[in-house]
Amino acid sequence: MTPPTSAAPTAPSVPQLLDRCRDVVRPALTEAVGRLHPWLGEMAAYSFGWCEVGGAPVVASGGKGVRQALAVLGAEAAGAPGRSGVAAAVAVELVHTFSLLHDDIMDGDPTRRRRATVWKVYGTGPAVLAGDALFALAVETLVQAPGGPAGVRLLSAALADVVSGQADDLLFATRPWTGPERVRPEEYRTMAERKTGALLGCALSLGAALGGAPPATVAALERVGRHAGTAFQMVDDVLGIWGDPAVTGKPVHGDLRERKKTYPVLAALDAPVPAARRLAALLESAGAPDEASTRRAAALVEEAGGRTAALAEARRHLAAVERGLDAVPLAGPGGGELRALLGFLVRRDL
Amino acid sequence: MTPPTSAAPTAPSVPQLLDRCRDVVRPALTEAVGRLHPWLGEMAAYSFGWCEVGGAPVVASGGKGVRQALAVLGAEAAGAPGRSGVAAAVAVELVHTFSLLHDDIMDGDPTRRRRATVWKVYGTGPAVLAGDALFALAVETLVQAPGGPAGVRLLSAALADVVSGQADDLLFATRPWTGPERVRPEEYRTMAERKTGALLGCALSLGAALGGAPPATVAALERVGRHAGTAFQMVDDVLGIWGDPAVTGKPVHGDLRERKKTYPVLAALDAPVPAARRLAALLESAGAPDEASTRRAAALVEEAGGRTAALAEARRHLAAVERGLDAVPLAGPGGGELRALLGFLVRRDL
Repeated sequence: MTPPTSAAPTAPSVPQLLDRCRDVVRPALTEAVGRLHPWLGEMAAYSFGWCEVGGAPVVASGGKGVRQALAVLGAEAAGAPGRSGVAAAVAVELVHTFSLLHDDIMDGDPTRRRRATVWKVYGTGPAVLAGDALFALAVETLVQAPGGPAGVRLLSAALADVVSGQADDLLFATRPWTGPERVRPEEYRTMAERKTGALLGCALSLGAALGGAPPATVAALERVGRHAGTAFQMVDDVLGIWGDPAVTGKPVHGDLRERKKTYPVLAALDAPVPAARRLAALLESAGAPDEASTRRAAALVEEAGGRTAALAEARRHLAAVERGLDAVPLAGPGGGELRALLGFLVRRDL
Repeated sequence: MTPPTSAAPTAPSVPQLLDRCRDVVRPALTEAVGRLHPWLGEMAAYSFGWCEVGGAPVVASGGKGVRQALAVLGAEAAGAPGRSGVAAAVAVELVHTFSLLHDDIMDGDPTRRRRATVWKVYGTGPAVLAGDALFALAVETLVQAPGGPAGVRLLSAALADVVSGQADDLLFATRPWTGPERVRPEEYRTMAERKTGALLGCALSLGAALGGAPPATVAALERVGRHAGTAFQMVDDVLGIWGDPAVTGKPVHGDLRERKKTYPVLAALDAPVPAARRLAALLESAGAPDEASTRRAAALVEEAGGRTAALAEARRHLAAVERGLDAVPLAGPGGGELRALLGFLVRRDL
């Protein structure tokens, strides 16, 4: 193992860090997407924010690239050059984009990152197929990399969890707000760990594995990523109700308006306080939610302790991230950058 | 390598052979599906013909299981016990079912094997997710098997071809019948090789690889499976126009009624004969196809040599299957059974 090639003398900011990792990964990601059927490649490039519909080049927001950065930093944390983690980075970005394409179909979401979703522009069938192509490409890219075949175990285990988490998320919507069939906060947390945490854990651990980290470190980093993902989801849920629309790009109380069963609401409903019962009655009342009832629901979630519970849960998982990172040997500046990136991921906008 | 465990003293019939292979594979396939999220597992079991909607056990037609049989026979042809090919068999059956689930969404097909399709029963979103789950499970199952990580290369290459073939198939529907943008018979053949042949080639070669066959044999069997798949599609196309509805379960002239661009039609349109021009004029005429115009189209496809061309193409690929099998060393009875199975696959009902 060689030391990291890009040790900066002073700690870079997280956006600089994301840029550096994106630069390391981009040629391989572009090359991989270029191997797709041209039609599917266009849908993929549109999703990544590289082109408009029809293929005209554009620079749109294709996401922050947190997963690819985790893979690169995972390799560096193992004492290897960041480029050792590139195949992991490409695989997890492809899988992430696949899951966004398919989730947008399942959720019927018409926009993502302020642009029309792929199914909305190209049709449901083509979007299903483009997702499948990205999924297949992820496996193909990884298996061809040095150390890749063993890495496919990590990727496929994460994929199984991502799919299982999405299944629970879809089913939660069909369950009642109260009674024995209600969704418990613990179930939601497990769902979030699978749906969001598994791929973050995979990014980090797969990068470390390709960088030559010992199995115990790989396993520990996998858990670190899962905790980070769970913490991220808790914060995302808080922002989904109380976030600043100018920052989140989503309407205030958006998740409550859509009657989403997110952690703050489920924790509030579970609290043994009068506000919980008033919240339950409000959520169970028939009719489309109006502005006033949504505002009142937000106030009741807060009064019943839902916001506090979600933030406490986020802090708990963030502490587990720190403990996990403390417990493994991390090479070079990768450890510090990793802490900075995971902190940025979770703490954003709070 | 040990000799096959189940060498029959007399050659069994193909249905007996399929039953034998199904019995070898079934426990592992059941176990794998049992690892899915219960809701996704029910959709998978419904697709396999193991249960009704809601999970009540039933024995419905879940397909002949040709792919799993090819994997088992591939392992036996390598001189290994059929059980060596079970992980390959499970992986290809899971991938096949995944592709059926998603293709039915893309094609809007309401029924398959005389039952409602998964998207029709459970909804589009859940069917997308169930397909994803089967895909992930296929990779996970294979990578955990002895020799599996190397086998993932074969599986992921096949997956890329299956997806790419499906993309071409979808795009063919949007192209004109005549002119420079028309679909050439060669393009259709390439599409069929990818969409249908790649997974058959994968089943056979992956089974052989797990059975310890040398790389040259694995590669040769991969090509054999591709030729068999292409031949199968040609025959399927002929049956899609002239097949006996009592046997195929599909209406007579079905593919022409749906104005599908299949090989007999494309070959007919490409022929330098007057019937080809009359066929083109008929297909390009506006309005919903009626009974009389469909019957006339079928007659013109035949007159322009489309049926003959498709059958000649099928024979050509079947000859390539035979040559391919002759050129590689095949152990025990596997070779004979393999020939019988591939012949059955292609020649059915002709």
